[in-house]
Amino acid sequence: MNFVLGIDIGGTNTVTGIVDNKGNIYFESVIDTKKFNSFVNLIQDIYTKYCIISRNNNIKLSGVGIGAPNGNYYNGNIEYAPNIQWGNNIPVVNITESIFKLTAKLTNDANAAAIGEKFFGCAKNMNDFVVLTLGTGLGSGIYINGKVVHGKHGYAGEFGHIKIENIDRLCTCKLQGCLETVISSRGIIQTYKDYYFAEYNDFPETEFSVADIYNLAIQNHKIACKTFEYTAKILAKGLANIIMLLDPEAIILFGGIANAHKFLIPVIKDELNNKVLEVFKNKVKILPSALLNKNAALLGSAALFFKSIE
Amino acid sequence: MNFVLGIDIGGTNTVTGIVDNKGNIYFESVIDTKKFNSFVNLIQDIYTKYCIISRNNNIKLSGVGIGAPNGNYYNGNIEYAPNIQWGNNIPVVNITESIFKLTAKLTNDANAAAIGEKFFGCAKNMNDFVVLTLGTGLGSGIYINGKVVHGKHGYAGEFGHIKIENIDRLCTCKLQGCLETVISSRGIIQTYKDYYFAEYNDFPETEFSVADIYNLAIQNHKIACKTFEYTAKILAKGLANIIMLLDPEAIILFGGIANAHKFLIPVIKDELNNKVLEVFKNKVKILPSALLNKNAALLGSAALFFKSIE
Repeated sequence: MNFVLGIDIGGTNTVTGIVDNKGNIYFESVIDTKKFNSFVNLIQDIYTKYCIISRNNNIKLSGVGIGAPNGNYYNGNIEYAPNIQWGNNIPVVNITESIFKLTAKLTNDANAAAIGEKFFGCAKNMNDFVVLTLGTGLGSGIYINGKVVHGKHGYAGEFGHIKIENIDRLCTCKLQGCLETVISSRGIIQTYKDYYFAEYNDFPETEFSVADIYNLAIQNHKIACKTFEYTAKILAKGLANIIMLLDPEAIILFGGIANAHKFLIPVIKDELNNKVLEVFKNKVKILPSALLNKNAALLGSAALFFKSIE
Repeated sequence: MNFVLGIDIGGTNTVTGIVDNKGNIYFESVIDTKKFNSFVNLIQDIYTKYCIISRNNNIKLSGVGIGAPNGNYYNGNIEYAPNIQWGNNIPVVNITESIFKLTAKLTNDANAAAIGEKFFGCAKNMNDFVVLTLGTGLGSGIYINGKVVHGKHGYAGEFGHIKIENIDRLCTCKLQGCLETVISSRGIIQTYKDYYFAEYNDFPETEFSVADIYNLAIQNHKIACKTFEYTAKILAKGLANIIMLLDPEAIILFGGIANAHKFLIPVIKDELNNKVLEVFKNKVKILPSALLNKNAALLGSAALFFKSIE
């Protein structure tokens, strides 16, 4: 059995765990990312912990797989990640390898999700598919001809910033009309507020999350249902572009918002058939991630290392 | 030296020629596609001609490479090509192989262009690039990780049908707002007519082509210049989406309209920098095809076969 240390770095939490090549997770642990004032301090803390764990349990680690926002596969750096406060170019692979004396691999969180889906999820037998990461932002990890698409410079997959007709919301990237302004936690909450205002000429009194809107939708709450319907319709517009460009076998919905897949997928499928050329109709599967109930980001990060030794 | 018969099938003309692995073309010939009432008759005619040529010149053909609209690489059929009148599913590879007793390969014209550019053009040292075919329609041939993107079903590259904001023209595919309604011969002529009408409250008296508009633009004719400027701006909007999804090394302009590249490329570059995320700015090369003065479609079709024996 092969064991890898998976590390999923987020702006708030960093999740670590030992993963075997069947996708079982052992000794999972969550750390407060912001508690550490540098990446060196974070990784040193992780190293100390897993040194003890692996010695006590007689586990020999083969390597380290790391997923992080703006993680660049080619140079091993986290580059200009807005929510990571350790600088603009953090040599994550270099530092990790020198501390662990093991090979480390880094990619961005969306690619890690796609690799996780390929190794342990619903894309095991697929060569051409797109995993959408639906959360705080909107990203995508793309497989084509059986390989991850990193692009020439390591920046591929910025699906959240393609422009869609009739969206005038301003994006955090400072451009207007990005898909992410609708398809993200922030975007969905905004849509709910807009519909709420249109209905009651007022804003909801309390703060709420996408999970709250989901719970309302389950109870057939009109504004919540309309919110997911609108979200799905706009997402379908973006997906129509991907589908006609890349002709994938499947689009896989991943991340927190993907838990609302039963409100999203039927609308996406319907809408897609109005947006794509005849030859693409009913061809592309729209699936929820097979890892929604597992720690998929951690599995994906570990799978990145397994992929490298295939 | 390796010799391949290249066949570029178009709705109007079919171009044939023997191509060597350095990209030299011999015995090029143009046939009227519509003169033949079936593909069998066309290919029989080509076979007879090249039997004689190869015998007389002591050339041994290794195979046949065919580019055609809606040519499907996987099944070897031309599928539902609007301008090809021989039926909806023409088993081009099957028929060609049985007549020539040689291996034949088929792909669509945009992929053939991309393969041509990779073998004989400006993409020789690139692994990630997109070739746009700018002509009657708008297509794209995509290379990722050094391989052609055919997609799961063989339909990838339909760049002409992605939707762009603020376009309300109806496409030949019956959808509205497709990029091709602006970026194509028909689209450019429409734009010219629209600007002409806005200026003179009348339509131009005679029929004209994109080449005519190009010649006017060279003479600094205001409406012609504005036409190319608008075309380039809309094209940049579409390209921003491709670039952020795939992070290619280059976008290569191919096809008749690409001859106007000196009016298009500077505007595309400028406009792209307003449309893409910071990390993509000034990263992606926008190049005219290196094969514009050669019979690129024929070279690409032949290169398809060379690729298959690599």
